[in-house]
Amino acid sequence: MAASMQIDFQTDPQNYKHWKLDFEGPVATLTMDVDEKGGLFEGYELKLNSYDLGVDIELADALQRLRFEHPEVKVVLLRSAKERMFCAGANIRMLAGAAHDHKVNFCKFTNETRNSIEDASEVSGQKYISVVNGTAAGGGYELALATDHIILTDDGSSAVSLPEVPLLAVLPGTGGLTRVTDKRKVRRDRADVFCTTEEGVRGKRAVDWRLVDETAPNSRLDEAVAERARAFAEQSDRVGEGPGVSLVPLDRTIGDDVVQYSLVSVEIDRAGGVATISINGPDAPPPADGDGLAELGAGSWTLKLARELDDAILHLRFNETEIGLLELKTAGDPAAVLAWDAFLAANSGHWLVREVVHLWKRVLKRVDLTSRTISAVIEPGSCFAGTLAELAFAADRSYMLIGTLDQDNRPEASMTLNGFNFGTYPMSNGISRLETRFLGEPESFETLKAHEGEALDAEQADELGLVTFAFDDIDWDDEIRIFREERASFSPDGLTAMEANLRFAGPETMETKIFGRLTAWQNWVFQRPNAVGEEGALRRYGSGQKPTYDRRRV
Amino acid sequence: MAASMQIDFQTDPQNYKHWKLDFEGPVATLTMDVDEKGGLFEGYELKLNSYDLGVDIELADALQRLRFEHPEVKVVLLRSAKERMFCAGANIRMLAGAAHDHKVNFCKFTNETRNSIEDASEVSGQKYISVVNGTAAGGGYELALATDHIILTDDGSSAVSLPEVPLLAVLPGTGGLTRVTDKRKVRRDRADVFCTTEEGVRGKRAVDWRLVDETAPNSRLDEAVAERARAFAEQSDRVGEGPGVSLVPLDRTIGDDVVQYSLVSVEIDRAGGVATISINGPDAPPPADGDGLAELGAGSWTLKLARELDDAILHLRFNETEIGLLELKTAGDPAAVLAWDAFLAANSGHWLVREVVHLWKRVLKRVDLTSRTISAVIEPGSCFAGTLAELAFAADRSYMLIGTLDQDNRPEASMTLNGFNFGTYPMSNGISRLETRFLGEPESFETLKAHEGEALDAEQADELGLVTFAFDDIDWDDEIRIFREERASFSPDGLTAMEANLRFAGPETMETKIFGRLTAWQNWVFQRPNAVGEEGALRRYGSGQKPTYDRRRV
Repeated sequence: MAASMQIDFQTDPQNYKHWKLDFEGPVATLTMDVDEKGGLFEGYELKLNSYDLGVDIELADALQRLRFEHPEVKVVLLRSAKERMFCAGANIRMLAGAAHDHKVNFCKFTNETRNSIEDASEVSGQKYISVVNGTAAGGGYELALATDHIILTDDGSSAVSLPEVPLLAVLPGTGGLTRVTDKRKVRRDRADVFCTTEEGVRGKRAVDWRLVDETAPNSRLDEAVAERARAFAEQSDRVGEGPGVSLVPLDRTIGDDVVQYSLVSVEIDRAGGVATISINGPDAPPPADGDGLAELGAGSWTLKLARELDDAILHLRFNETEIGLLELKTAGDPAAVLAWDAFLAANSGHWLVREVVHLWKRVLKRVDLTSRTISAVIEPGSCFAGTLAELAFAADRSYMLIGTLDQDNRPEASMTLNGFNFGTYPMSNGISRLETRFLGEPESFETLKAHEGEALDAEQADELGLVTFAFDDIDWDDEIRIFREERASFSPDGLTAMEANLRFAGPETMETKIFGRLTAWQNWVFQRPNAVGEEGALRRYGSGQKPTYDRRRV
Repeated sequence: MAASMQIDFQTDPQNYKHWKLDFEGPVATLTMDVDEKGGLFEGYELKLNSYDLGVDIELADALQRLRFEHPEVKVVLLRSAKERMFCAGANIRMLAGAAHDHKVNFCKFTNETRNSIEDASEVSGQKYISVVNGTAAGGGYELALATDHIILTDDGSSAVSLPEVPLLAVLPGTGGLTRVTDKRKVRRDRADVFCTTEEGVRGKRAVDWRLVDETAPNSRLDEAVAERARAFAEQSDRVGEGPGVSLVPLDRTIGDDVVQYSLVSVEIDRAGGVATISINGPDAPPPADGDGLAELGAGSWTLKLARELDDAILHLRFNETEIGLLELKTAGDPAAVLAWDAFLAANSGHWLVREVVHLWKRVLKRVDLTSRTISAVIEPGSCFAGTLAELAFAADRSYMLIGTLDQDNRPEASMTLNGFNFGTYPMSNGISRLETRFLGEPESFETLKAHEGEALDAEQADELGLVTFAFDDIDWDDEIRIFREERASFSPDGLTAMEANLRFAGPETMETKIFGRLTAWQNWVFQRPNAVGEEGALRRYGSGQKPTYDRRRV
């Protein structure tokens, strides 16, 4: 796998190699038809609807477009174009050949994509139905698990399975174990049997064990799907008005040490291991209403910024793996940011406003889940207000300058809270960043609400606990430099593991279980010789040779 | 480290090398004074009150004796006998030299021991106060974190710290990160600063950041401790009646393939990777009341069995690392087990009854947390009833024989539930094994309550979802054999990770976070070259050479 290859997360249906989107009124059909020869890297063929990152990038794109471009769609059917094979899961040769960091990043992205299916169902009224017309194995079944309803053909052979442990010595790490126990609430001993049975479970037992929702003979399959689609469409609360918003290509130039978007720029300091992500505040005032936002299309400040920031984060995750610190900066007028937030709040019933706010929620979660140290650097001229203040609360640390710098006439840094900081953007743990931050001081959290709308200077923000440190110009440069150097001197792994534990205090959800517990165990297994060693199961898969295991239990 | 050395978890205060216990009315003092030369293995010195497994075995023993032998003790002071050093944490050279499985097992045991401090506080009215008279670093601070109250001397140098990440590229994996965020609820950016500051935090900042509860100058330290001890003793609900129960040495013989206790025997099939743990039902009826139980001392069936089973599990974890499957069997009269449970329930106000029940709770949790496949084999003549039925619910799978076997005149297998199966023994997730089992079918869970006290045969138990499989004598031997062989053919790591995910559905607690998320990340880090490689931080610590890190973030 060429390490120098740049992975691009931007695509569109005209360029899909592996998926097809069809529309019929409120029902869309998303058909998986993986091109065997269309792998993102050399060295493997994507047989039997198995997938690699490239397949998942298209899926993520399709899910996003279904929400923004198709307000009329209330039900999405997830189908396979292959005969007797729904999806065979992540491609094994791809996994066997991939570097540890790629495997882990790949799994994280696929997890985020599956979570976004559940998000569409929960908050956008787009329900997903898996039509499992054959085998759904491993990641294939995990994909189905992310949907609202699984229909399995009852043909005596079609089955769902999680064969990772018996076959490959790795975990069903794309949420599979967690969704089996916590979403579908399969009894643990049955889950044990299921997850150790290579051929999986079919027919009546699959329904009895709650692994699928219903079965249908092939002769009745289409009818059963249509019935279910009709029922889901009727229950959907999606507001299907007007035309969609076309997600036009991002305005982006990737240079050697810089990635330039229209509102975001990323400067990369490879020697220091730092990427500075600079975010521009509004380039125009908000429109009059939701329909006005729709007329602006993908060019509105808020939608453009969310998409650019999302792309920048993904780019850094996959293409700049040695950058350990992401430094977040903003520039612009805080009042303009607050005006946009006020517009979104006032028009929250409009379908597009809803989609934009939930996209911001997902982008902010993507920041939380990024395995890099994140700092917010809050300087004169910045606009960490409302939605953009969330970036400071997503950071591991924030530094705020007291007063101004010499020969710098930008206005003094301020931070302003609004209603968006108190619940609009929950983290994976289900509560807001501020609530998580102040778990130990609920009274401080309550106090904050009284300061909504105030432009807080550095000393006030520090006093209220909103920033980690406030320094004046005498210490500023040194403190920022020392932090950068210190961070670069630590073990990247130690930081990854530490941050994964410190960022998500408080309640646990299926998402935190997936990204905390399940992912950590998967990462561990991905390091173990029994899986990835020369004689391990991943390497030996398909070779005719059985893996050799170190029998010591850990 | 000699792999062949047997680790013994049995000790007593006369044989402690590292701890001293003193008593003064309701206040006990547990003093850590680690013998540098007293390491469990060769190759390191336990300087600066650093610890290895041997130190922790004594601590676990002391905690147990404080509960059983000292009903009068309401407050325990945790102190150090070293000057200006409370505890330096786990010994680094020991960690650097230990095999992966030993490191992981060691951390699990130390975690269980710290949890038992919190358990003593929560349910036994024994409050713990840490008197930090110097540095509490890493595992030293984690030990203090497990106590109810931390007093730090304010001498300008004494500090608490978690220097693992900056110094060693590993995590504070003995609950440190989780207790900082979820018990003490330290703000995440402060936690980030704290966990990356080698020298830690002292004085007022330590209090302001909620890392300790109070500071006191050396001149006032003893006074402050005495005050706090008095206050805690007054609040304690411990019922301090009568003499304690002496935890006499276990009756145990360790042979080549067998460990024989008075009520438990462990047969080891090394070729098959199976240990069969056979548990005997009551050898005598219960006494008339709690004082009668106290008169029986450590010889009562219930206390003896809990201690023996606990020791057997620990023995298997540490000394039989290649045994992948623990097969649990019982033999005896179910009615006799139920009579003991009824006795415990009727006398639940007695201090010793309370201790015995909570010991069972901890032993059963130890079973849940054991990284081996666990099966329950429920045959004629067995007594999986009440407390002992929990063993079947702790198993990954259970097999129950329908009817009897040829030429076997033992009574047909039955399973009986009582009140102890509905909340007396919560798992780490805070709910009972049965509630966890039936998360997806709350109505089945309710149905079970109607069957309390009924001796359910295999078909009934199967119907009610209490066992995984019920087979008659035609299939029995084959099914058990196939399961054993299948399990032995899988990757031990895959199974460990899978079981860790499947066993704990539903709610999350600090304990599940520690054993799920934190432990998994720690295990991952313990596999990473940046920590354990030739040029990694653990290996290079103290060598004068800086570690060399692979800078790729994962």
